[in-house]
Amino acid sequence: MNIDMIDAAAARLTGHARVTPLLSSPFLDAVAGRRVLVKAECLQHTGSFKYRGARAALTALPDGTRGVLACSSGNHAQGVALAARELGLAAVILMPQDAPRVKLDNTAALGAEVVTYDRATTDRDAYAAELAQARGLELIHPFDNAQVIAGQGTVGLEIAAQTDARDADVLVCCGGGGLTAGVALALNARAPGLRVRPVEPEGFDDTAQSLAAGRIVPNPARAGLCDAVLTPAPGKLPFPILQRLCGHGLVVTDSQVLAAMALAQDRLKLVLEPGGAVALAAALFLPDAVAGDTVIAVATGGNVDRDVFRRALKEG
Amino acid sequence: MNIDMIDAAAARLTGHARVTPLLSSPFLDAVAGRRVLVKAECLQHTGSFKYRGARAALTALPDGTRGVLACSSGNHAQGVALAARELGLAAVILMPQDAPRVKLDNTAALGAEVVTYDRATTDRDAYAAELAQARGLELIHPFDNAQVIAGQGTVGLEIAAQTDARDADVLVCCGGGGLTAGVALALNARAPGLRVRPVEPEGFDDTAQSLAAGRIVPNPARAGLCDAVLTPAPGKLPFPILQRLCGHGLVVTDSQVLAAMALAQDRLKLVLEPGGAVALAAALFLPDAVAGDTVIAVATGGNVDRDVFRRALKEG
Repeated sequence: MNIDMIDAAAARLTGHARVTPLLSSPFLDAVAGRRVLVKAECLQHTGSFKYRGARAALTALPDGTRGVLACSSGNHAQGVALAARELGLAAVILMPQDAPRVKLDNTAALGAEVVTYDRATTDRDAYAAELAQARGLELIHPFDNAQVIAGQGTVGLEIAAQTDARDADVLVCCGGGGLTAGVALALNARAPGLRVRPVEPEGFDDTAQSLAAGRIVPNPARAGLCDAVLTPAPGKLPFPILQRLCGHGLVVTDSQVLAAMALAQDRLKLVLEPGGAVALAAALFLPDAVAGDTVIAVATGGNVDRDVFRRALKEG
Repeated sequence: MNIDMIDAAAARLTGHARVTPLLSSPFLDAVAGRRVLVKAECLQHTGSFKYRGARAALTALPDGTRGVLACSSGNHAQGVALAARELGLAAVILMPQDAPRVKLDNTAALGAEVVTYDRATTDRDAYAAELAQARGLELIHPFDNAQVIAGQGTVGLEIAAQTDARDADVLVCCGGGGLTAGVALALNARAPGLRVRPVEPEGFDDTAQSLAAGRIVPNPARAGLCDAVLTPAPGKLPFPILQRLCGHGLVVTDSQVLAAMALAQDRLKLVLEPGGAVALAAALFLPDAVAGDTVIAVATGGNVDRDVFRRALKEG
């Protein structure tokens, strides 16, 4: 993995992925006690950054590829489904049966074949390998795939171009670590004073624990509010990159996440899903864990069931 | 009023107003039966396009101006308050006492002095003139001000640059008509196949009625869901521009507005206020009132009380 792969992904994404805005509000600055810049990846096609990595990976496949298979709680699913449709490839998506209804429905509506499984009883990776083999499909891993990481890294290229900040923490919502690793690689090359920190929800802080332990420490697989970032462990490909570039991880509570969602509604006019709001929650509510006059939070996704968003507006 | 004034306003706004994105979703296209492009002015500073006109007007004031006074239900108020703070001018804002709490609070938090009045019993314009005279302030009218219209017209310059559509209706949420007139002037000069149509809520369609009658026909002053666009009549300065460039007006129901707000949440990850969603409501739910394969809706504001937004997510 190097910056050239990210630049090449950016070239393939030009005219397809949106350049998302870097937003701010004086009201959020007042809450955080420093300037807060929010990279609004919820405005990306399909409502999350995952479209970047998906299209980057699918455009790097060899000619003659019949179709693709992806495992996802919903955002990678939609990114792969849309990119596959644009490129004329078949897409089969393996999703947990308890994934948010909006994500299941959107994935199917984007033309993918959705296959569901039970998180508690199914070995997802084995099932995916079996399906890919039987159907002749190329497996597109959500984070253990170099082209996916390169695609997600284009978020970092945009941040470097959009801000004059050159000494700030960049907080990234972290599941398997593909986005975090890609952004860290991009910023390390283009704006090395911007330090990437992974952010996770309490009880699902496998990356923070793994960084502290110096080896991959898994979480038990279970459901939670922040479904988009509940991977059981950091990926094998991202983890060494995080170890090299990211220092420590940050951890936020569900109530901080709901409050960040409500403030994003009030102050940025953005709809964030819980997993997409963990970095903003840390930027707003963990002032002692962040250094510098400016903090940059990547808001990664907005695919939230209306009931969950209504709860955030009531409780947050 | 001419395109040179809009270009000059754009030059004064560069580096201050945000260039807001033009967004889309295949799911919205399916609802509307044609491609829908949404100009996300809810992402402008202060949550609405009004900052553009406010800053354009304040930067055109003569040297030595002591301060400014504005009348507004809340979005113009916040735009003037922020622009005044940036430029070091005092700002007094006259707001109806039943304006949304979030707008009253935001205006005060942006450093303006907020003075409230009763819509039913007070002659707002007389009160404003009296206050401006007594305090030595320059009145910044929300739409009967050429520099304000020029500033709002920069939305039209951006639309012309952001889309390849050259034969489409451009639907604009319409109160006094300042934004509608500014966008119409800009598009008439830069993309004359983009036809501007004002959109209003049912029961408050003074502009549609005035365009049909060929003279200004006022509505009774009263409160309603779409507070941002409930001006009693089109402005004297915008109306002749609308007559020349805009054809007929469109009218939507409150339930169509709530449904558009909910779909903007689901599909664009945007928070729209009711008055800011009337154009999108028309784009989605009035297919027979729109011509062409593409429709462009300007989403004008996102300053909505959490309770109202929760209602849209439940009922919409």
